[in-house]
Amino acid sequence: MRIAVLEKDGRRSWYALEGQKARRFARSPFDGGTVESDLVAWTDAELRAPVAPSKIVCVGRNYAAHAKELGNEVPTEPLLFLKPPSAIIGPGETVVLRAESDKVEHESELAVVIGKRATRVSREEALSYVLGYTCANDVTARDLQKKDGQWSRAKGFDTFCPVGPWIETDLDPSDLSVKCIVDGQVRQDGRTSQMIFDVPTLIAYVSRAFTLEPGDLILTGTPEGVGPLAPGNRVSVAIEKIGELTVVVASPA
Amino acid sequence: MRIAVLEKDGRRSWYALEGQKARRFARSPFDGGTVESDLVAWTDAELRAPVAPSKIVCVGRNYAAHAKELGNEVPTEPLLFLKPPSAIIGPGETVVLRAESDKVEHESELAVVIGKRATRVSREEALSYVLGYTCANDVTARDLQKKDGQWSRAKGFDTFCPVGPWIETDLDPSDLSVKCIVDGQVRQDGRTSQMIFDVPTLIAYVSRAFTLEPGDLILTGTPEGVGPLAPGNRVSVAIEKIGELTVVVASPA
Repeated sequence: MRIAVLEKDGRRSWYALEGQKARRFARSPFDGGTVESDLVAWTDAELRAPVAPSKIVCVGRNYAAHAKELGNEVPTEPLLFLKPPSAIIGPGETVVLRAESDKVEHESELAVVIGKRATRVSREEALSYVLGYTCANDVTARDLQKKDGQWSRAKGFDTFCPVGPWIETDLDPSDLSVKCIVDGQVRQDGRTSQMIFDVPTLIAYVSRAFTLEPGDLILTGTPEGVGPLAPGNRVSVAIEKIGELTVVVASPA
Repeated sequence: MRIAVLEKDGRRSWYALEGQKARRFARSPFDGGTVESDLVAWTDAELRAPVAPSKIVCVGRNYAAHAKELGNEVPTEPLLFLKPPSAIIGPGETVVLRAESDKVEHESELAVVIGKRATRVSREEALSYVLGYTCANDVTARDLQKKDGQWSRAKGFDTFCPVGPWIETDLDPSDLSVKCIVDGQVRQDGRTSQMIFDVPTLIAYVSRAFTLEPGDLILTGTPEGVGPLAPGNRVSVAIEKIGELTVVVASPA
């Protein structure tokens, strides 16, 4: 199933998409929500970020080629950091660059959307806690990431976490193409099979540290090919069997 | 005003405390809530964590003597990191130590509770965005903090963010005593006047990076004297004109 948040006339609701039509969720999909029977056209509604997480847990250096391109060692266990929910934007929205940074970069990532509360779950049962998967861009002020040491600010600025366009629920995350496309040019082109720690391993590891709540996100790391964004760029994260998340880039206000 | 969350018979509500009595808020204090006229006794109810933030922004090395005791430079701008909301516990609850860590330490801190949405606010207007102040313990697995490099896991484990016992709204945060007391022994004893970056400067700085939402917390850093916690410890954060936040420490489950 493809689950989206649609906005029409200022009202946002959860929908299950079926081609150009959709069925509305009577309750949130995290709340055992079932879809209504009416099939309605959704082409005149806007897709919004399909998530409202209590936390966004990110994994650094989870693809060996990306760790190496930034001159880092390949980690021996997952390297966790957090982005604040205030950084989230949805499809078609705008990443606003920062006056403080000369180098803001894209990082295409598969995002896991947690479906039910998870504490210390095993690798074997991990995938049963997943609602589905979506695309995310872990936008990063590379110069400030290095300068600050802690990555929260460089990766947490407002608009630095595009997510969407929808959640795909019926998906095997183990070997999907993950691309980043800037103004039509492919900048990143990896596969989730290249992850050092796979999705079940990450969920088990994260849930040992932090209780995961329904709606929480795990951003699973980025393949090699990260690079700078400039005002006016159209940047897309494209993941096989999910779709494309496109946002635009603007100068600081 | 002293604002608390009280639980009785499994129901939690916001109250304004007046000695041993209290008036209930008709709506949340973040929502322009007004208190009801009935004055009721609250001694048979339990105090709970008086916060449910969308993010917890923390400031590292904000007291020079503490930066030095861990062998670090004094920062030239605020060093930000995030703790996940899943780490929060309230007064009387239990910090659970970790099998992964041999050195879990206390860090007593003044916590700022944001009252209304704040984006790029100036230092001069910063305090008008504050609802009030409470006590927090930035519990830290010191060995993992160093090993991981990023601090999110070492400072973000479940139960590693005790907060409370209530929010004090009528308070000047510029020169308050901040103590940590473990089993009756004073371990930390500083004053907020020793902060490198004061509360208005921190709010202005954080709000330039992240939009702050009502209920969000800023943990303002810890004075010198941090030290290890052991199973069975009773650990209190005591802040002048607010009160004492006491929790107990337990072995890993």
